Amino acid sequence: MDRVYNFAAGPAVLPLEVLLRIQKDFPVYQNTGMSVLEMSHRSAMFEEIAAQAEALFRELLNIPDNYCVLFVQGGATMQFSMVPLNLMRRSKKANYVVTGEFAQKAAQEAQKFGSATVTASSADRQYAYIPNLSMSSFDHDADYVHITLNNTIYGTRFPSLPDTGEIPLVADMSSCILSEVVDVSRFGLIYAGAQKNIGPSGLCLVAIRKDLVGFAPASAPVLLDYRTYADHASLYNTPPTFAIYVAKLLFEWLKSKGGVEGIETVNREKAAILYDFLDESSLFQGTADREFRSFMNATFVLLNENLTAAFLSEASAAGFVNLKGHRAVGGIRASLYNAMPVEGIVSLVDFMKRFEAAHKSR
Amino acid sequence: MDRVYNFAAGPAVLPLEVLLRIQKDFPVYQNTGMSVLEMSHRSAMFEEIAAQAEALFRELLNIPDNYCVLFVQGGATMQFSMVPLNLMRRSKKANYVVTGEFAQKAAQEAQKFGSATVTASSADRQYAYIPNLSMSSFDHDADYVHITLNNTIYGTRFPSLPDTGEIPLVADMSSCILSEVVDVSRFGLIYAGAQKNIGPSGLCLVAIRKDLVGFAPASAPVLLDYRTYADHASLYNTPPTFAIYVAKLLFEWLKSKGGVEGIETVNREKAAILYDFLDESSLFQGTADREFRSFMNATFVLLNENLTAAFLSEASAAGFVNLKGHRAVGGIRASLYNAMPVEGIVSLVDFMKRFEAAHKSR
Repeated sequence: MDRVYNFAAGPAVLPLEVLLRIQKDFPVYQNTGMSVLEMSHRSAMFEEIAAQAEALFRELLNIPDNYCVLFVQGGATMQFSMVPLNLMRRSKKANYVVTGEFAQKAAQEAQKFGSATVTASSADRQYAYIPNLSMSSFDHDADYVHITLNNTIYGTRFPSLPDTGEIPLVADMSSCILSEVVDVSRFGLIYAGAQKNIGPSGLCLVAIRKDLVGFAPASAPVLLDYRTYADHASLYNTPPTFAIYVAKLLFEWLKSKGGVEGIETVNREKAAILYDFLDESSLFQGTADREFRSFMNATFVLLNENLTAAFLSEASAAGFVNLKGHRAVGGIRASLYNAMPVEGIVSLVDFMKRFEAAHKSR
Repeated sequence: MDRVYNFAAGPAVLPLEVLLRIQKDFPVYQNTGMSVLEMSHRSAMFEEIAAQAEALFRELLNIPDNYCVLFVQGGATMQFSMVPLNLMRRSKKANYVVTGEFAQKAAQEAQKFGSATVTASSADRQYAYIPNLSMSSFDHDADYVHITLNNTIYGTRFPSLPDTGEIPLVADMSSCILSEVVDVSRFGLIYAGAQKNIGPSGLCLVAIRKDLVGFAPASAPVLLDYRTYADHASLYNTPPTFAIYVAKLLFEWLKSKGGVEGIETVNREKAAILYDFLDESSLFQGTADREFRSFMNATFVLLNENLTAAFLSEASAAGFVNLKGHRAVGGIRASLYNAMPVEGIVSLVDFMKRFEAAHKSR
């Protein structure tokens, strides 16, 4: 069976090279006599895989030495709890910039642990933009400021990082990690569920500045304390070993593509192909404000709404799947993660042009 | 490369048939045009996999309809926090039976959430037995009693379930789930990290009586509240999709082997082969009291301790790997999970006999 072009928002497309390598590693990985699924997490062979995964992640993102890299379970949603539980350490105040549903969920969850204030929001125009932020947007004594660097549902992206001065900046990077160059030293903590640009669901990567580790209350559940992971190289309990192995393969693939710098060039090209078409089309129209458009999740609508269902159905039949917009907003969403090749976007735009022409002539 | 006999305590051996099936499903699963790793957790194709996994788990364990089955992340360790957080709902008292390290960790973690008392322990003889229990062992107003049905490190097993009357019985079944018939209706809650008898690490299965769901405090982290999973069919956030798929394959394999009844017969046979040899050997000696010996984890020592390193090294060279006892106790441990075939035990015992003979004649 041929492979389709999978535009899902996550879990999402992976590079074919990575999938073939996984296939090759079954039922026996190299000369170990067993598959990766069967390896003890305390074996030398798995420890090597995990160490390589961490080293590659650090190299690709250029993570400074004063940051810990942690492999955590529970996805970004668990971070919605862990961030406030660990970082609300002085004033117990945190500021949230709400640019979509997940940012809203993060802010809401944080209220269980202290005073989480929404200091900026773009809810007034259905999250089509990123609010303008300055130091005066934030409480001077906030323990941290939380942003969602890329919005998966509404298709927006922070074009630049807000200046939070001495206040640690925390970012959910689930849908844009490793897609463009970021300066990790600007952040106190970043986190990303792996199922978009890294690999399998069930793994979340966290990079935290070391001076921010160790402030969870004694009553915190052991696996919700960053110190548990920092003190045990993420091996306090059994980690999601297979997911870490797939992440390692993905990182190797990304490095072979020129790393984050290399893929950012490709991602900007992919986004330009799609957005340029949207801007000239008289049937399809982008929903996010231009200057805030995401490189990873392009959201758009058909100006003739009656054609939306037909478009989705014909696209799927032609091998372009998972283009339906998030259930909260409808319309169309094409996720353009690192593993989506340029040909996928070119083919999709060709298909959209043909669809538009067919429905114009009628 | 040939496969070895992998006696690891977890992650652990999986059936070759399951591994070959996984291999076949890369890079494309059936007629979906993508691999399982790339499927949206909200797609019909993944929902079918998850529904089959749950249905098979229910069928294999004969789980009554008044129990929810939940797919959770964080392994058994996360349950050490979730059980007290959710079930300490009236007296805030819980009783723990401590039969090893993980039971001790569970009791210790529970003290963060209320009064967790160790009401019975076998620490006095290095956990070589299961304490005798009766209703008088427990506080009459305890919110629950927690046991560890099989001890992975010391190689013991509860030969029968304690009578806790109306007090919900909670069991960590990580290392014995699906290995022998149990009456789930005797429990308020059971849980098991998947990486021993089910499949990949990063997935934990929970079966909880429905009347016990919904008592977590409002301040509980959202993913530590059983209600979050019960209300959303374990899809509140992205679940570990690949792990659930492997679990489904494992359940199908187990069903094809006659289900839990069928595998229990095999497991008893495997354990008998090894323990019978230990009982007649003058070099190898089992460490757990006979009536409490585990079917899943056989622990033993060499009476001539100087030979332990040589035994482990020669065994490994002969293809019998991961036989080293847990770092807390030393000696030898052979894990005999469902996927370890009878031939593996027969071959191991043959090897042990040859090793013993070689060192007797010197």
